[in-house]
Amino acid sequence: MFKVYHEVLTLSTVRQFQLIDITKDVEKIVERSGIKDGICVVFAPHATGAIIANENEAGLLDDITTFVREFTESDREWKHNRIDDNAHAHIGSAVISSERVFPVIGWRLVRGTWQNIFFVEMDGPRPYRNVVVMVLGSIS
Amino acid sequence: MFKVYHEVLTLSTVRQFQLIDITKDVEKIVERSGIKDGICVVFAPHATGAIIANENEAGLLDDITTFVREFTESDREWKHNRIDDNAHAHIGSAVISSERVFPVIGWRLVRGTWQNIFFVEMDGPRPYRNVVVMVLGSIS
Amino acid sequence: MFKVYHEVLTLSTVRQFQLIDITKDVEKIVERSGIKDGICVVFAPHATGAIIANENEAGLLDDITTFVREFTESDREWKHNRIDDNAHAHIGSAVISSERVFPVIGWRLVRGTWQNIFFVEMDGPRPYRNVVVMVLGSIS
Repeated sequence: MFKVYHEVLTLSTVRQFQLIDITKDVEKIVERSGIKDGICVVFAPHATGAIIANENEAGLLDDITTFVREFTESDREWKHNRIDDNAHAHIGSAVISSERVFPVIGWRLVRGTWQNIFFVEMDGPRPYRNVVVMVLGSIS
Repeated sequence: MFKVYHEVLTLSTVRQFQLIDITKDVEKIVERSGIKDGICVVFAPHATGAIIANENEAGLLDDITTFVREFTESDREWKHNRIDDNAHAHIGSAVISSERVFPVIGWRLVRGTWQNIFFVEMDGPRPYRNVVVMVLGSIS
Repeated sequence: MFKVYHEVLTLSTVRQFQLIDITKDVEKIVERSGIKDGICVVFAPHATGAIIANENEAGLLDDITTFVREFTESDREWKHNRIDDNAHAHIGSAVISSERVFPVIGWRLVRGTWQNIFFVEMDGPRPYRNVVVMVLGSIS
């Protein structure tokens, strides 16, 4: 039998660039969904943030932050900055994507050993950031 | 009860790099699907285009175009250009991705205030570009 | 009627950077699923690999490899390299994404003429790499 289930996570960020590990929250939502086999969509309804899957190692989190900052040229005079000083964050969100999709098999989210799930803040600090976690599949 | 529904959008592009806002079309397809809760996959069957979600602000659209042009090094002598002069567009499509996935909750596509949906042309002009919009979920 | 079906592909890679075409394998799994309309998620449970869709042309595969190597700055002294010499591969996987999603319509995977599906190795050679192919949808 088919089921759809979702919950919304609420986060706050304290730095301009910040990676927040939401793996445990996502895994608990998959457990609570009762869905045996299907998929889990992790979606941030934000045009200046992103979702990625990768390793939670302090040095690497710094590397990813450095990469995103340089890659999006956060100190360049982008045209959008005449309106709002965050063009780099929009570019990062557009390219990296605000969503990732994971299989669910046997009531468990499928991910590699080094694939933790992160919300990527690129325009913080922000008191409210949401992540919609949607699980779809069969319950038996 | 589970339902799958899809429609295909047809676009034409007039410049080498161009962002076309398809948000309203995608939202209407979600409405017509009659699906209450699930997901919407927006997929371009093209290896030289992409789908992104971001803000429809004129300066930002210029910034994203500039970014993609520079990022993919559209004036570099890529090897693929011996065959077809569009390697940069293939690289952009491969990295940015030809698809984005959105939650559907309560008969509505879920997206942030600044998340419009765009087809990203990187090898235009083209008379025909398609976008497949696939909606899956429960109808009650 | 709703169905979920999955299979796991096993690959080995022989170079640091390598693109492996898995299109035929994915298409066979979609056929074996018996699913008529829905989606196919191609997911690599690896934080140093990625999945992309693009053209299988020798020059372009070299271009994409060159791009990924330069883009991720594989010879930079990333902090993660104090622990493991593969920060560039983690960055590439995080940004490009370990998954792609395709529509399934009329028992066929939907993809463009030039959209072959590839596993992107960025930290090879590796004896075992997996790709989870999950198909969801209606069987009639």
